[in-house]
Amino acid sequence: MSDRNPPADDPQPEAKRGPRGQRGEISNHILTAGRLQFAAHGYAGTTLRAVADHAGVDPTLITYYFGGKQGLFEATLEPPPGLAARVRQASATPLETRGAALINAVLEQWEDETFVTIFRSLILTAAHEPVAMTRLQALFEDTLLATMADGLNDDERKLRASLVSSQVIGVIMARYIWNIGELARIPPRSVARLIAPTLQHYLTEPLPP
Amino acid sequence: MSDRNPPADDPQPEAKRGPRGQRGEISNHILTAGRLQFAAHGYAGTTLRAVADHAGVDPTLITYYFGGKQGLFEATLEPPPGLAARVRQASATPLETRGAALINAVLEQWEDETFVTIFRSLILTAAHEPVAMTRLQALFEDTLLATMADGLNDDERKLRASLVSSQVIGVIMARYIWNIGELARIPPRSVARLIAPTLQHYLTEPLPP
Repeated sequence: MSDRNPPADDPQPEAKRGPRGQRGEISNHILTAGRLQFAAHGYAGTTLRAVADHAGVDPTLITYYFGGKQGLFEATLEPPPGLAARVRQASATPLETRGAALINAVLEQWEDETFVTIFRSLILTAAHEPVAMTRLQALFEDTLLATMADGLNDDERKLRASLVSSQVIGVIMARYIWNIGELARIPPRSVARLIAPTLQHYLTEPLPP
Repeated sequence: MSDRNPPADDPQPEAKRGPRGQRGEISNHILTAGRLQFAAHGYAGTTLRAVADHAGVDPTLITYYFGGKQGLFEATLEPPPGLAARVRQASATPLETRGAALINAVLEQWEDETFVTIFRSLILTAAHEPVAMTRLQALFEDTLLATMADGLNDDERKLRASLVSSQVIGVIMARYIWNIGELARIPPRSVARLIAPTLQHYLTEPLPP
């Protein structure tokens, strides 16, 4: 949606929307500004005018690229690109080292500034907007379910995924959102060494009845 | 601050502020309304008029009880009553069962509706307001530092507290704020059984170098 093509019968001259090569850049500026506005003010508190001002573009360009406020909002809720692929990669590692692969995948994504901007906005927007909260829930549940061992029954699979997700969420919040404690200050490889055994425990070790 | 007494030379008649027995109740209504408004709109986006409307009181009562918007804001950032005492209690249990004592203390607090309202607002307000974020950081760091084993050096003490705090934060976010996965649906005693071994590991077992 962020790269929505102009309708073929669009009569507007090219000049108004910027040269062809700048289109991705312009829609990215709008998306970034939209994320920050929705995160700070929620859907109702955000105006296209404010997004346009922050993006440094004319408001009509938002309608042009995203169809309006609702379309822009939907686009800002898309998960960061690369997330699904990176998780699939972690799920393909052997089960006995998957705890380490998982925390490394999480940390690698979160050390990337673009990813952080997108995900942080999603977290903040979720505080105002039930739709964003539902996306966030689905993102954690689906992504981590995919990393569970094969052959588990459905209940155990969901329970183990939920345990993994609780420790992953805790690291994300402490390190990247709230900046709490030593986990926010030590290098990623130290975080990975400390947290991998817990994830491995939740993935493969016997759980209390 | 929520029970601030009227200044001795206050000339206002008693009737305007409600009978003596209702004072705590009125200031609690104002506090609750303030928490919700600051959580939803941040400090700048909150007006005394809106808080008063939500609390069903006259705006002058907010100034009377809290000295104004800044005073009300400060009061909403106070940690929930009982938190410190409950954590001290958990820290007094023998080290070898302290993981279980800790997660039970956390869950017991979070199953209490008043506690949840206060803490949820603090979390949401922290998304807008650096002052609230600082309180949240201090609350987690100080509270959990107090539960560490005696005799650890300062670095290890902080690192272990941070690990405990990451798993506690993950459970709180998954279960009480985002409602993600099985951990949000199973009874507290099941959560405690599943999470206690992780906290115990972070409290007492050898950590990777």
